[in-house]
Amino acid sequence: MKISIINGCLITADKNGTRLRGRVYVDGEKIVYAGADEGAPEFAAERVIDADGGIIAPGFIDAHTHVPMTLFRGYADDMPLMDWLQNKIWPAEEKLTEEAVYWGTMLAIAELVSGGVTCFSDMYNFCGAIAKAAEESGIRALIASAVIDIDGNGDKRLRDAEELYESLKGNGRVRAAVGPHAEYTVSPEMFIKVRDLAQRLGMRVHVHVSETQGEHEQCLKRHGKTPIALMESLGLLDVPVMAAHCVYVEDADIEIMAKKGVSALSCPGSNLKLGSGVAPVAKMLEKGVNVCCATDGAASNNNLSMAEEMTLLALLQKGVNRNPSLVPADTAFRTATINGAKALGIDGITGSLEAGKQADIIIINAKGFRYCPKTDLLNHLVYSGSDSDVTLTMTGGKILYENGQITFADPEEIKSKAEEFSSKITGC
Amino acid sequence: MKISIINGCLITADKNGTRLRGRVYVDGEKIVYAGADEGAPEFAAERVIDADGGIIAPGFIDAHTHVPMTLFRGYADDMPLMDWLQNKIWPAEEKLTEEAVYWGTMLAIAELVSGGVTCFSDMYNFCGAIAKAAEESGIRALIASAVIDIDGNGDKRLRDAEELYESLKGNGRVRAAVGPHAEYTVSPEMFIKVRDLAQRLGMRVHVHVSETQGEHEQCLKRHGKTPIALMESLGLLDVPVMAAHCVYVEDADIEIMAKKGVSALSCPGSNLKLGSGVAPVAKMLEKGVNVCCATDGAASNNNLSMAEEMTLLALLQKGVNRNPSLVPADTAFRTATINGAKALGIDGITGSLEAGKQADIIIINAKGFRYCPKTDLLNHLVYSGSDSDVTLTMTGGKILYENGQITFADPEEIKSKAEEFSSKITGC
Repeated sequence: MKISIINGCLITADKNGTRLRGRVYVDGEKIVYAGADEGAPEFAAERVIDADGGIIAPGFIDAHTHVPMTLFRGYADDMPLMDWLQNKIWPAEEKLTEEAVYWGTMLAIAELVSGGVTCFSDMYNFCGAIAKAAEESGIRALIASAVIDIDGNGDKRLRDAEELYESLKGNGRVRAAVGPHAEYTVSPEMFIKVRDLAQRLGMRVHVHVSETQGEHEQCLKRHGKTPIALMESLGLLDVPVMAAHCVYVEDADIEIMAKKGVSALSCPGSNLKLGSGVAPVAKMLEKGVNVCCATDGAASNNNLSMAEEMTLLALLQKGVNRNPSLVPADTAFRTATINGAKALGIDGITGSLEAGKQADIIIINAKGFRYCPKTDLLNHLVYSGSDSDVTLTMTGGKILYENGQITFADPEEIKSKAEEFSSKITGC
Repeated sequence: MKISIINGCLITADKNGTRLRGRVYVDGEKIVYAGADEGAPEFAAERVIDADGGIIAPGFIDAHTHVPMTLFRGYADDMPLMDWLQNKIWPAEEKLTEEAVYWGTMLAIAELVSGGVTCFSDMYNFCGAIAKAAEESGIRALIASAVIDIDGNGDKRLRDAEELYESLKGNGRVRAAVGPHAEYTVSPEMFIKVRDLAQRLGMRVHVHVSETQGEHEQCLKRHGKTPIALMESLGLLDVPVMAAHCVYVEDADIEIMAKKGVSALSCPGSNLKLGSGVAPVAKMLEKGVNVCCATDGAASNNNLSMAEEMTLLALLQKGVNRNPSLVPADTAFRTATINGAKALGIDGITGSLEAGKQADIIIINAKGFRYCPKTDLLNHLVYSGSDSDVTLTMTGGKILYENGQITFADPEEIKSKAEEFSSKITGC
């Protein structure tokens, strides 16, 4: 279908950070024009969407989440971390099924697209069910099958990861990664096997790194190395790695990450809520690390709002480092868009509004009081707006959300199924 | 008018933190019943509002803001503090007029009520214009006329404060306070005059305290005392004091605040955005200080969302203190409601859902994906929800906002006038 989106303020996230009033043309899956009205080619649109002076932007990319955990939203808040994990989250996860994961994922996707997210990067189990929901909905996803081997089932999980890869081979929109969970749940031998698998199949690696001080320090005790240094020594960083959290990475770790092209997936809200701390995002950016913004799962956020998350990412760095110039609005916006695409290895096809890329596009209404006065729309988007202002979300040219409604499923069925499975699991 | 609000989950913020399914009856300005369906008295409602399973709560109280500064929203972000003040904010404030302040206030009130705020506490100049807008809109307000005397005009400003008091005398909804700006802009002599005025007229004092490290330390150098200790020594704390920010208050300051009943008005978003830091909110709460949540002005936030602010207040304390149990959801909610009422000296008439109090009530839609599954509505409100879920805002029984529309003015006129005055002042 040929769609023309007119009368907008384009915030492109291209390499020049181009912002201009103009229009976007979509032909099938792709953007064929993104620019000023003047100079736009002839285009026989089947549908014309009026952005009405609002923002036209690339969709948000949620670089680290656990979508099925929407089922645990609000179930266990304000608790000490180990109490939360051992007495609430892990027992709940024991009760998960393929069907529960499918509906939890559907709920997450409904929430994500309602907030302008066109692509997410996940790490979890039951990845077939996650992939099925992603495939059906139309959202873009990179799904990492979690690998843990402290329970002796590492090889089985590695096979699961390979199976996920095989099942998604050739799928341009929903792809597989491999997710060695973290240094404290994966042995050095298994990290090497993961690297070999990733190398053999051309998969990306998605791993939790230095989320808490305890975990970071225990690794130092165990191996005499930080998690990043250990992973480098094992050759894991020779494949493209997406490192979630990175709250306690040290200066030397940051040097390694920059050198090896490791992306940091920062989850500022979750890191605060679980009492983990504040990642050195400004320093990582300064040293050339590709930092992406991410929500983490809804059990520790508790929503999947990338708009809130990029605001928080920027504000935290300013406040904690006592420097209001750090992470300015356009940098924050890039962590939520093009940087995510780079981390996922798909910046050639998405992450910015550019002709030739996939039409992963959102429209943001700028008529609300929070967008008044119109001093600077990008500042408003990052520091004042809300993802409730998103009026349209499109992935690969397909509209997934428009004017308050998801288009790919019955919202009432999703909520009812999510309630049912959550209730079975949590007893709430 | 007699209004019945039925079919809701009441989160009352009363002293027991009562939460129950039930209903609220409003007769004229007041709540006459807030409780379970069972046991509700006969009530001949002229209008029945169905909360549809959503939350019925006391309205948010924004305990520290500068409403006219909505005109500067997005005008100067990501800048070093003194550069921001000296080259952007102060020159812009020089150009303000009564009319500009009126429309900036109208824009702020429109935004506030859209986000469930039923009452705000301000400190600024041109307070007559702020009071006029508050009076016309129907929102509740405590307006502190700012007093600065470093320019030699302290006595004039003190007279302005007294005039504001006289002009609002007898007004139950829009009241006057006196606002000695801060230790670095007000002489000790003037603080004493302010205290005398406040004592004579029974006014509350609203003052900025230890917002930045520099300001706190310069006070120590100048007076050998912290700002709080200095204010105590001058007798200022013998009247009810609302102390905004309190980022750098020390343990001894906190003891004084608890002893003297000084309320801390915490603005976590603004403190981060301006690079000031993180206030010791958890410690103040632990020591018995009445801590309230507040947005500060839109030039440093950049919106007036109390829902976002209470979330941030809670998350920051957990993260910075590395303790996820700190400031649990119900505490965060109280900082945004009843604690604000205490600070403003109006907890006898508002701040919670209780029969006999003013009907300052909001309804929050809980049908959205972010409220699913229904594990815990209070957790959802604080950690997952958004103020875009507010469907109705009522102050003193008058509906100010309902289903996306403000009721007290033409939103297009407000936006157009705010754009006009902002543009004249900022050149944007």
